[in-house]
Amino acid sequence: MFFLTPVLVAVVCILILWIFKAADRSPEKKKGEPQTQPWVHEDLKDSSDLHQVEEDGDEWQESEEHVEHIPFSHTRYPEEEMVKRAQEFYELLSKRRSVRFISNEQVPMEVIDNVIKTAGTAPSGAHTEPWTFVVVTDPDMKHQIREIIEEEEKINYMKRMGARWVTDLRKLRTSWIKQYLDTAPVLILIFKQVHGFAANGKKKIHYYNEISVSIACGILLAALQNAGLVTVTTTPLNCGPRLRVLLGRPSHEKLLVLLPVGYPSKEATVPDLRRKTLDQIMVKV
Amino acid sequence: MFFLTPVLVAVVCILILWIFKAADRSPEKKKGEPQTQPWVHEDLKDSSDLHQVEEDGDEWQESEEHVEHIPFSHTRYPEEEMVKRAQEFYELLSKRRSVRFISNEQVPMEVIDNVIKTAGTAPSGAHTEPWTFVVVTDPDMKHQIREIIEEEEKINYMKRMGARWVTDLRKLRTSWIKQYLDTAPVLILIFKQVHGFAANGKKKIHYYNEISVSIACGILLAALQNAGLVTVTTTPLNCGPRLRVLLGRPSHEKLLVLLPVGYPSKEATVPDLRRKTLDQIMVKV
Repeated sequence: MFFLTPVLVAVVCILILWIFKAADRSPEKKKGEPQTQPWVHEDLKDSSDLHQVEEDGDEWQESEEHVEHIPFSHTRYPEEEMVKRAQEFYELLSKRRSVRFISNEQVPMEVIDNVIKTAGTAPSGAHTEPWTFVVVTDPDMKHQIREIIEEEEKINYMKRMGARWVTDLRKLRTSWIKQYLDTAPVLILIFKQVHGFAANGKKKIHYYNEISVSIACGILLAALQNAGLVTVTTTPLNCGPRLRVLLGRPSHEKLLVLLPVGYPSKEATVPDLRRKTLDQIMVKV
Repeated sequence: MFFLTPVLVAVVCILILWIFKAADRSPEKKKGEPQTQPWVHEDLKDSSDLHQVEEDGDEWQESEEHVEHIPFSHTRYPEEEMVKRAQEFYELLSKRRSVRFISNEQVPMEVIDNVIKTAGTAPSGAHTEPWTFVVVTDPDMKHQIREIIEEEEKINYMKRMGARWVTDLRKLRTSWIKQYLDTAPVLILIFKQVHGFAANGKKKIHYYNEISVSIACGILLAALQNAGLVTVTTTPLNCGPRLRVLLGRPSHEKLLVLLPVGYPSKEATVPDLRRKTLDQIMVKV
């Protein structure tokens, strides 16, 4: 016969709480279990697109005002011209490459202003325009940015990523040496504003801020290519907070992308990569 | 004097485990505490850009091959022409608006092919090109898409979002009625591939897939505007899994954006919104 000794009670309590804690994690664990139905079943349980708004939902602020609608004015081209314009724009953009060898020659700042104005025409969730473009031309500041990035990147390459990550990127001949951060005449650091502030000073959540700012970045890349400038799209790993502090940006702004911008250096090379064909990326229904 | 009765031990055990569990959550809780130092201190604790790669790190696959470098060929314009091209591209893009009133008139499919080819020139993390563009022109399929979206959106508006969300979007005159999903001749559903497959069939993580696909989406929006077509950037809330199953896309693809594409209808209106000025979005250092 068992007695409820203090020790036994302690063990039972620990077991019960352990079971409760394990139960909290069960939805994740189930993912690994074999499914009795095909992938359609698992698909419908997928809630990857649910969390973003639901988590933020209770911080959403009152609307500021009712915005009037006005007639939309549109430029329509004849069909033949549409086809020609679309073809020419494809040809222009298809020549864009990520270039890591950037000349130290200065670029017209009027062009930089215009490409950033162009990026600012991007759509954004609830018209929040949650972007800040920091344009760095000061050589000292560029060098400080380089030092932070190289320091962190070296740690990434050597330690955090493990041998496989280093191997995988080697084929693109990247490394933790980022000379272009000194030589490029302009660095554009694109920050996403994860929230803004309402008129009353309260936080105003910026829904879909990462998608919005990345779309603006895509338009910026198109504008740079159109102007005959080159860049390489970089997401400096683990450097966001230090670069933000260096540049004096507030804590609700997070670094998304850093673009060194300029002309290609004379000896610039690019990896001999192929792009997927149209039938590899498009499905018609 | 207290005795170690079984009940007392049970209570003590529960308290101890509760404290342990609470300790697990402490980094989150600390965010709410008043900071003794200015925002710089909190900034440096920010690790918002750390998690993405670290979580995925152990699934990273071996590289496939070493890619040769080739000389980069570049088109350089005279400075005056650069300025002019940048200005003209800004003017073209600045006329882009999100248009919710789309005519049922057919558009040249050659243009659609070209704008998607153009989007496919976007850069992507480790050149993974993690995008699938599903082009829907079939009226029945468009209508099924509309039914799914309206059903979910109605639930979103009425229940999930609460009164404040509904008020906030009202100023843009959106609602859960999405007529453009029937009338627009083309719907482009852009999926991000959260991972791919290596030659050996193992999962190959697509780093920064959301940023990459959003950048491609930005280039697609520029290409549509250049061709004289209109769209509205939508992220149908909670509909991703059902739409993916409807369109027969595999579970590693997640719906990011849906673009109804066509000509504006004759009575099309847009909210009378202003964009931020250059000095509101750009900082020079």
